[in-house]
Amino acid sequence: MDYLSDKAKGLKPYIAGIQPKESGWIKLNTNENPYPPSPRVAEALQNASIQSLRLYPDGDSAGLREAVAANVGVSAENVFAGNGSDEVLALAFQAFFSGKNNVLTPDISYGFYPVWSGMYGVGARVIPLYEDFTVRIGDYHNGNGVILANPNAPTGMALSLPEVEELVRANPCGVVMIDEAYIDFSGVASAVELVGRYSNLLVVRTFSKSHSLAGLRVGYAIGDSRLIDGLRAVKDAFHSYPLGILAQALAQAAISDAGYCAETVRRIIVTRDQTASKLRGLGWRVLPSQTNFLFVEAENAKELYEHLLAHQILVRYWDMSRINRFLRITIGTDAEMEVLIQCIEKQRKQR
Amino acid sequence: MDYLSDKAKGLKPYIAGIQPKESGWIKLNTNENPYPPSPRVAEALQNASIQSLRLYPDGDSAGLREAVAANVGVSAENVFAGNGSDEVLALAFQAFFSGKNNVLTPDISYGFYPVWSGMYGVGARVIPLYEDFTVRIGDYHNGNGVILANPNAPTGMALSLPEVEELVRANPCGVVMIDEAYIDFSGVASAVELVGRYSNLLVVRTFSKSHSLAGLRVGYAIGDSRLIDGLRAVKDAFHSYPLGILAQALAQAAISDAGYCAETVRRIIVTRDQTASKLRGLGWRVLPSQTNFLFVEAENAKELYEHLLAHQILVRYWDMSRINRFLRITIGTDAEMEVLIQCIEKQRKQR
Repeated sequence: MDYLSDKAKGLKPYIAGIQPKESGWIKLNTNENPYPPSPRVAEALQNASIQSLRLYPDGDSAGLREAVAANVGVSAENVFAGNGSDEVLALAFQAFFSGKNNVLTPDISYGFYPVWSGMYGVGARVIPLYEDFTVRIGDYHNGNGVILANPNAPTGMALSLPEVEELVRANPCGVVMIDEAYIDFSGVASAVELVGRYSNLLVVRTFSKSHSLAGLRVGYAIGDSRLIDGLRAVKDAFHSYPLGILAQALAQAAISDAGYCAETVRRIIVTRDQTASKLRGLGWRVLPSQTNFLFVEAENAKELYEHLLAHQILVRYWDMSRINRFLRITIGTDAEMEVLIQCIEKQRKQR
Repeated sequence: MDYLSDKAKGLKPYIAGIQPKESGWIKLNTNENPYPPSPRVAEALQNASIQSLRLYPDGDSAGLREAVAANVGVSAENVFAGNGSDEVLALAFQAFFSGKNNVLTPDISYGFYPVWSGMYGVGARVIPLYEDFTVRIGDYHNGNGVILANPNAPTGMALSLPEVEELVRANPCGVVMIDEAYIDFSGVASAVELVGRYSNLLVVRTFSKSHSLAGLRVGYAIGDSRLIDGLRAVKDAFHSYPLGILAQALAQAAISDAGYCAETVRRIIVTRDQTASKLRGLGWRVLPSQTNFLFVEAENAKELYEHLLAHQILVRYWDMSRINRFLRITIGTDAEMEVLIQCIEKQRKQR
């Protein structure tokens, strides 16, 4: 007997990158930060009260939302916090896109968008990126919603703030969601500064990348307070307390340390640009990255992926049309990137 | 412009009990445990690696699932872990009930069940409890699913294991979900021991009550591996990593300390039974509790709720038909229950 609901039977789940359980891997496959979180996070962890864990957390994450608001220059009523930006986005799909058609999204972007569209009954209109992997705003007008990562993944390429503003203005009848998971690694300004002027803009961000807290699971959204109220209503129909006490406290500590975040981001950008140069030196095409990863077109990408895997170096490869000649390589430490380059050079000599 | 989806507009969110931010309250409103978590949880927190937080957690929570499996006597493939039993239940509603009618549930139970039914398109058939608040299994035959808390909340009353087995047998065409949030406080055996024999039984449990970890947000389900696979598919279409590294590690530490859990549960049961006697001594009707709370019929329940609130004692009151003469009172420490009783007696003298 099959007990699954029709909804569950129709699912096409997202497949995340491998998380090896043993040590010894150079892990460049899920865009984690190679540096540890801020020392203030360590301090918050040491000061965490074991006693308080017997109590439910604040379901509204008020302290964390205030810290985020102060960091990005909005009010706490413009901030929603959730269990990673994946949860925030999944709730936002339900709040704003569910049952709608003509929600605009590029063909090559974060692989969870089509999964949530299927899960929550969203009729997406998929718009191909150009051959050079650019998004052109003129293609994204008059949707019932837009979901776009900026910078985009896995391409690593970013739209400018005026382009994002044009996108928001060109879609007055729907919510424009800008997924800024990688914005801190880019040279472009965040769309957060548009929030006060547009009631249809939702900016989604995460502690998993620039704040080195992928293991904590905290993400947030910034938008008009009516959008935040909508997100909260969906949250309260799903889960009263999605964020635990430790997650709230540690994320709050992380966002209070803007200097540490900026410094580790700066180091990652230096390593990224050096690595991009070296890979271009091998004759490869490397897309111009505004993120903490590189998207590179390599001869025989799949074979190279397997070669690296055999040497305990994990990168990401998708056997999908348009991008099956590419590898997505997370920026690790300088030492890790050095091992990667050597391993690639070794394979080239063997061929 | 209203950007909410029709789905979001139709929501009737769950309203959780108040979580006061300041101290000084006697908090008997959300069935938290008055004792701290196991010392092993404190140890796990001290040993937590701040470095590891930069990495994504194991999306399958393998270590935690193995610890749960060892604790309850099943295999890890029979265990699903999620961000609190609320998330586990919400995913289970989607996996097994979504789009189905004739899902059976009592009229008085956990208030989130009708919320999830609305959220995920479940046609519930609501069956009234009897006047004495009992469930009779004969009323729950041939459903396309059953959701039942055992012990039930807010009544605190439990079905025996043979009754639960009859329920599972009487509903061969649907998943029977038994929400055992309070089972450790009951004298009845867990339905987990039926799992090996019935492919349509899903038992859902939490770390929030007997393990004193409401602030951590960890719950789990036990069932046939095909049901667990279904839950995992829905999870992977929603969120790759619902449980953070700290949540997995601390919950694992808690469940490894069965002795501590049993001892704190024993103390709560002693306090519960003493408190029930005292309240019966005031002439009140106290339902026979198999949980860490009491459901009591008091003259003028609403007025008493407000009197207690004014004295910084939080209990739970619902202004709903059938139960608007009742208060639900969580069992705190002996000292807290003493203050409660005194506060009640004081009010009775004033009237």
